[in-house]
Amino acid sequence: MTEPIEVIVAGLPGNMATLVARQVAAAPDMKLIELGLSKRAGITRAGKYTVLQVMRRYYREVLGKHPEAIVVDFTAPKAVNRNAQLYVRTGHPFVMGTTGGDREALISTVRGSNVSAVIDVNMGVPLVVLKAMVEWASKQFLGALNGYRLSITEDHQANKLDTSGTALAFKDLFSRLGAKLTGKIKSIRDLEEGHGYHWFTLRSPDGTVVIELNTKVEGRLVYALGTLAAIRFLHQRVQEGSVGEVFTMTDVISARKEA
Amino acid sequence: MTEPIEVIVAGLPGNMATLVARQVAAAPDMKLIELGLSKRAGITRAGKYTVLQVMRRYYREVLGKHPEAIVVDFTAPKAVNRNAQLYVRTGHPFVMGTTGGDREALISTVRGSNVSAVIDVNMGVPLVVLKAMVEWASKQFLGALNGYRLSITEDHQANKLDTSGTALAFKDLFSRLGAKLTGKIKSIRDLEEGHGYHWFTLRSPDGTVVIELNTKVEGRLVYALGTLAAIRFLHQRVQEGSVGEVFTMTDVISARKEA
Repeated sequence: MTEPIEVIVAGLPGNMATLVARQVAAAPDMKLIELGLSKRAGITRAGKYTVLQVMRRYYREVLGKHPEAIVVDFTAPKAVNRNAQLYVRTGHPFVMGTTGGDREALISTVRGSNVSAVIDVNMGVPLVVLKAMVEWASKQFLGALNGYRLSITEDHQANKLDTSGTALAFKDLFSRLGAKLTGKIKSIRDLEEGHGYHWFTLRSPDGTVVIELNTKVEGRLVYALGTLAAIRFLHQRVQEGSVGEVFTMTDVISARKEA
Repeated sequence: MTEPIEVIVAGLPGNMATLVARQVAAAPDMKLIELGLSKRAGITRAGKYTVLQVMRRYYREVLGKHPEAIVVDFTAPKAVNRNAQLYVRTGHPFVMGTTGGDREALISTVRGSNVSAVIDVNMGVPLVVLKAMVEWASKQFLGALNGYRLSITEDHQANKLDTSGTALAFKDLFSRLGAKLTGKIKSIRDLEEGHGYHWFTLRSPDGTVVIELNTKVEGRLVYALGTLAAIRFLHQRVQEGSVGEVFTMTDVISARKEA
């Protein structure tokens, strides 16, 4: 029987970190370490596990006790770089869904190390598929939709202050295809927690063709499931001897051609 | 000044052939030959041109008078193979949007010849972009959306008897991604002429993620414009010495990497 993959969760008791801990607890091929990395002391319940939240001054000790574990990081923008440096020093491969920080420094921290990592700002598999395919088309068919008009509406929870990163990313990709945004991105904010909707509409210059791409995500489960896929992928790669490699979710979900 | 591209239209007075003739007539870089290939005698008016419809027994003569012309073929399934054989014998590169016939024989007719051709069942640029990108994803991310449920609705004019080929093609592509059709493709038929709508909806197993891809095409202009892009592409390739090559619309709209 294969040993379960040991997972340490950083960022407890945050929403994403807690949800990931619960999914790890429920996964038959994983073992949740009952010490989690946190900004504040406390406990997080995750299925059959009770995770003790350990504060920064004990991080090294926790990591040292579990040399084989993979760390999942859903913390805060300002923790991104120092967390990565720590994982590299203690030799822990990690999956990082946390946004912000100095991304270039983050990548070079991993590239120069003995540790590999999956780093992405969007862990949701269907959204990664969509973005990757539009990105491919934007290179393959540069300007093919010249003159097309693009409209974008996005809807997120009320406490989201900035424009959706997904909306901005697709705006750029469609723009390379030739479809330019008319007006501004329309942002709707409402009280429902943890949802994300996007409507992208492309119209031909003469109005006879309309293409719509819409995404609706309720809650965060899709991101947690993507994170578990990333953990399995990273574990596999580490078993195969991967060091110093930075993977994205696109790598995680790419069909293994070499198999 | 560059010489205009000479274009002979086959399939007059069919809807697509007539529309293409009109667009060629209006294109400053093209010259419509005033003899068109047809099943029956007659005339077709296309902008400043009056095209005389010439029947099969005179095809060779017409083609012989215009050795530099590109032929555009929107005829009938049963004419596909013998038309291609004729164009090859008379040395005319051709753009064929006609469906049906023996497609393998069609391709080998061109491959063994001194003539290159653009052959595709869908000449609409935005639809080619969408299909190509989903096709790419279906290979790159084989099974990434395992467990997702797919629903498809398509809407075409009342006299369309079979299920939309676009709907069937996308069903297969999404299926390779892991999303299986639940139930059947829903086909709506109504009286409006020359429209094609498709709604593809993907739902995650837990229902928290919904992805929609919708296409709405009114009329045939988008296909005629794609045909003109194919003529320009083929002309360029022939100038560069292309012989015996079969191109698709995906080739036509691919950004020229070598440029």
